[in-house]
Amino acid sequence: MSARIDLNADLGEGFGPWRTGDDAALLDIVTSANVACGFHAGDPDIMVETAVAAKARGVAIGAHPGFPDLRGFGRNRIQESPKRIERDIAYQIGALRACAALAGARVTHVKAHGALANLSNEDEAVAEALARAVAGVDRSLALVVMPGLPAERAGERAGLTLVREIYADRAYAEDGTLAPRGSTGAVIHDAEEAAARVVRMAGEGAVFTSSGRRLPVAIDTVCVHGDNPEALAMARAVRAGLERAGFSLRPFAES
Amino acid sequence: MSARIDLNADLGEGFGPWRTGDDAALLDIVTSANVACGFHAGDPDIMVETAVAAKARGVAIGAHPGFPDLRGFGRNRIQESPKRIERDIAYQIGALRACAALAGARVTHVKAHGALANLSNEDEAVAEALARAVAGVDRSLALVVMPGLPAERAGERAGLTLVREIYADRAYAEDGTLAPRGSTGAVIHDAEEAAARVVRMAGEGAVFTSSGRRLPVAIDTVCVHGDNPEALAMARAVRAGLERAGFSLRPFAES
Amino acid sequence: MSARIDLNADLGEGFGPWRTGDDAALLDIVTSANVACGFHAGDPDIMVETAVAAKARGVAIGAHPGFPDLRGFGRNRIQESPKRIERDIAYQIGALRACAALAGARVTHVKAHGALANLSNEDEAVAEALARAVAGVDRSLALVVMPGLPAERAGERAGLTLVREIYADRAYAEDGTLAPRGSTGAVIHDAEEAAARVVRMAGEGAVFTSSGRRLPVAIDTVCVHGDNPEALAMARAVRAGLERAGFSLRPFAES
Amino acid sequence: MSARIDLNADLGEGFGPWRTGDDAALLDIVTSANVACGFHAGDPDIMVETAVAAKARGVAIGAHPGFPDLRGFGRNRIQESPKRIERDIAYQIGALRACAALAGARVTHVKAHGALANLSNEDEAVAEALARAVAGVDRSLALVVMPGLPAERAGERAGLTLVREIYADRAYAEDGTLAPRGSTGAVIHDAEEAAARVVRMAGEGAVFTSSGRRLPVAIDTVCVHGDNPEALAMARAVRAGLERAGFSLRPFAES
Repeated sequence: MSARIDLNADLGEGFGPWRTGDDAALLDIVTSANVACGFHAGDPDIMVETAVAAKARGVAIGAHPGFPDLRGFGRNRIQESPKRIERDIAYQIGALRACAALAGARVTHVKAHGALANLSNEDEAVAEALARAVAGVDRSLALVVMPGLPAERAGERAGLTLVREIYADRAYAEDGTLAPRGSTGAVIHDAEEAAARVVRMAGEGAVFTSSGRRLPVAIDTVCVHGDNPEALAMARAVRAGLERAGFSLRPFAES
Repeated sequence: MSARIDLNADLGEGFGPWRTGDDAALLDIVTSANVACGFHAGDPDIMVETAVAAKARGVAIGAHPGFPDLRGFGRNRIQESPKRIERDIAYQIGALRACAALAGARVTHVKAHGALANLSNEDEAVAEALARAVAGVDRSLALVVMPGLPAERAGERAGLTLVREIYADRAYAEDGTLAPRGSTGAVIHDAEEAAARVVRMAGEGAVFTSSGRRLPVAIDTVCVHGDNPEALAMARAVRAGLERAGFSLRPFAES
Repeated sequence: MSARIDLNADLGEGFGPWRTGDDAALLDIVTSANVACGFHAGDPDIMVETAVAAKARGVAIGAHPGFPDLRGFGRNRIQESPKRIERDIAYQIGALRACAALAGARVTHVKAHGALANLSNEDEAVAEALARAVAGVDRSLALVVMPGLPAERAGERAGLTLVREIYADRAYAEDGTLAPRGSTGAVIHDAEEAAARVVRMAGEGAVFTSSGRRLPVAIDTVCVHGDNPEALAMARAVRAGLERAGFSLRPFAES
Repeated sequence: MSARIDLNADLGEGFGPWRTGDDAALLDIVTSANVACGFHAGDPDIMVETAVAAKARGVAIGAHPGFPDLRGFGRNRIQESPKRIERDIAYQIGALRACAALAGARVTHVKAHGALANLSNEDEAVAEALARAVAGVDRSLALVVMPGLPAERAGERAGLTLVREIYADRAYAEDGTLAPRGSTGAVIHDAEEAAARVVRMAGEGAVFTSSGRRLPVAIDTVCVHGDNPEALAMARAVRAGLERAGFSLRPFAES
C-alpha cells in the first residue's frame, strides 16, 4: 500500500483584468488549490472560474484568506485587532464557499496567505483568530499549518482537522521554522534538488535543518508555486519525484 | 387564528467608522433584517455585530447584496454582465452566511439593494442572474421580490421560495410598480397614513394605485426604513397598526 | 520642413503586483504616454515609476482618468452625475501631477479612458464635465479628443488646447466615429496595413471611412497600443511608416 | 500688537453617503482645515465641497493624508516601505490640490493623519518620506508637526516651512510627547480646562508636562476636534479663550 501525500499551491491570484501565473498548468500538477478570496487578490469571477477548473481536474478547493490589501498583495502587515482578523477571514471563507457552490464544488480547507500567514505563525492571538474563524464557519474545514508553530496549536485547541505542510523550495532553520529568505541557501532554486528534498522529507516524516539535524514532523502536504515558468518546472519535478518514490498524490481532504 | 406578516428593513449599512440609522431601535421593530454585505455598505465587523443583535431579538437575517460601490452606496447603475452580477451576488451571500455563522445565526433570505434591485425589476437578464445566484448558493434561501416584476418571475422559474413585499411609504402606479419618486404623492411622509395604508393592503391582499384601483397581490412582508427619526416613527406606527389590526408579526422565514 | 506628429499610448495600467503590457518597450516607440491614475488602473508607485521612465526618454506625460473600477478596468459604464465625474477626473489629474512632480516631471495633457472616454464622446454633459475638470485644474493642460465629437466641442468652449487623435487599428464609420468593434473590418490586425492607413490619414489630414469617403480632420496624434506583442509590433510599424514618410515624431505638448 | 495663532482641525472625514462631525460648525471656529484626501476618508465630492466651504470662510486648506484604509479610518499601522509612503502622500496632496482648484482655492499645508502621523513621529524613515513627499510636490507647502519629534527634524532638513502644533485636549509626558491615552489625566474632557491650558501654553511658548515641568517650544497652531458636540464646545471655548487673551486668530499660511 502506497503512502499518500497532497501537493498544494496558491491559485486565482489575479484581479479584474490581471492574472498571476499559469493556473491551468498548475492545476494539472497539484491536488489542492488555495484560492484567493478577494482581499489580497481574487474576485468573484476568478474565484468561480478557478473553482470550475479545479473541480474539473479533481483538485481540492481551499480558501486562501489574506489581509485586505490588493495593492500590497497581502504582503504588508496591517495592525488589526484579532477580532477583526477573525471576521475578515470568515468573510473570505464564506465568499469562496458561495463561489464554489456556483461551480458545483465545495471548499475543503483553509490556508492563510502572506503577511496574515506569517503573523499566524508568530502571534498566538492571530493564530487563535484564524482557528476561531475556520471553526466558526464550518468545523469540518481542514486548516493547513506549518508544524510546530502557533497556528497548529490554535487549530488543535479548536478541534480542527489539521494538514501539516512542508515547503518544496525553502530551507529550514534549527527550530523548524523557515530559514529567513535573506540567509544563504534559504531558497532552493534547482527543481531536482527541491524534488529530492521533498521526497526525503516526505519519506522520513521529518524536515532537515541547514545543519543537517532531523526534526520529525507529520507531513500531509507539500507547498509548490506556479507564478513563473521556473516555479512550474519545480512543481512538476516535485510531483514526478514523489510519484517515482511511490507516493500516491491525492487531496488530503478526501481522507 | 390571526394572519401573519413580516416587517423588513435594511440594516448594517455603515462602513468602518461610519454608521447609517439607528439599527438597535429598528431591530426592536422589524422581524427581518436585510444586512449589507460589504459591496455598497457593510464590513465583516458590522455584519457579525448586526447578526448578533438580530439573533438576540429573534429577527431573521437576510443578505442585502448591492453593486460594488461604497461611495455611491450602491445607487449608481454599473453596466456589468449578468454573469458578473450573479457571481457578485453569490460572493456577498456567502460572506454574510459566514459572518452570521460566527454569530451562531443563519441567513434565511436575500433581498437586492438599490440600483441592483431596480435593475432586477426591469431587466430579465439581471433578474435571472439574481435568482441563479440565490439558487446556486442555497436553494432554501427565500428571495424577497416585488409582486409582478421580473425578479419574481425569475425566482419562480428557479423554484425559489418567494417573499412578496409592499412598501409602507410609497404610492403605486397603475401597473403595480412604485410611482416615480418625483411624482405628486409618490412618497408618503405621514406615519399614520403609511400605517393605515399598510393595514389596508395587508388586510385586503392588494395594493391600491394612485387612481384608487385595487390590484390583488400576495403580501408576505412590509418594507420600512430606519435611517432617520421620522422613518423610525413610521416603522413603529406601521408595526402598531398591524398589531392593532390583529396581525401576528413574525419572520416569514420560520414558516 | 517636415510635418510633425505625436504618437500616444496608454501606460502604467497595472496595479499593485500586476502589470499590463511592456511599458518599457512602448516608451521607446511613442512620444506621449497617457498614465492611469489609480481609478481603473495605476497606483502611486506605478505612476511615479512611469513618470520617471517617460521623462528619461523625453516622452510627454498625460493623465488618463477613468471610472473608479479597478476590477472592470474602467470599461463598465457607471451612472454617475456629471458633477461627480468632473470631480473624479480632477482628483486623478491632481494625483498624477504630484506623482510626476516626485519624478521631476510635469503633466502636459489629459485623455479619458475606456467607458469614460466613450461617454464623453456621446453625452454632452459628460463631455462638459471632462472639459471643466481639465480647465479647473490647469487651463494649460491639453485635452486629447476624437475630432467631431462632443468632447472636442466641450474642450473648445472651455478654451482648452485640443489634440486631435486618430486610431491606428480602427476603421471609421461614415460619420467619422469608430466603426463598431463587432462589424466587419472594424479592427485592423495587420501592422503594415495599419501603418499605411496612418501615413495616408496623417499625410492627407483626413480619415477615410469604410466606404472610402474622405473626411478632412485635424490630426495631431496617433493612438497605438502595447498590451501584447502584436500591438507592440504594430506600434513600431506605425512609427517607422511615419518616419519614412518624413514626419517628425515629437510630443504635441512641446509645440 | 497682538500675537497671532492658528486653530486647526480635521475636516471632510466622511465617505460617500457617510459623514463625520459637524464640519459647517467647525469651519466657523477654526482658521485651518486639514482635509482628508480619499485614503482614510474623503472622496472627490467631499473634498471639493469642503474646499468650497473653507474658502468661503477664509479658512486655510491643508492636505490630511493617511494610510489607504477607509475601513480602519487610517488608524491601523500598515507595514509599507518609506518609498510607498512617500508616493501615497504625494498622490493624496496632488488630488486635494486639484479638488481645491475646482473650488477656486489652493492648498497651503500638509498634516499627516492617524497611524501615519504617529509613525512619522516615531520612525525617522517615515518622517523623511513625509517631508520628501511634501517638498517633492511643492516646496512652498507648510508641514504641520509636533515640536521635538522626527517629523519636525525631517521637515527642517528638507527646508520646509514648519508649523508647530499643540493639542488642546491632551496632556504631555515628561519628554514632550503626548501622554499615552490610557494613562490618568491623559485626555482633557473639560472645555474650560482645555481652553485655560491652551492660553497658558500659547502665552508662555511652552508645554507643561504632567509633573508641571515647563518645556519651551514654538507654538504656531492649536489642534481641536469637531467629531461630537463636546468636541465642538471645547473648540469654541479654546477659540474664545485665545481671543480673550488677546491672540489674533488667523491661518498660519498667510504669514
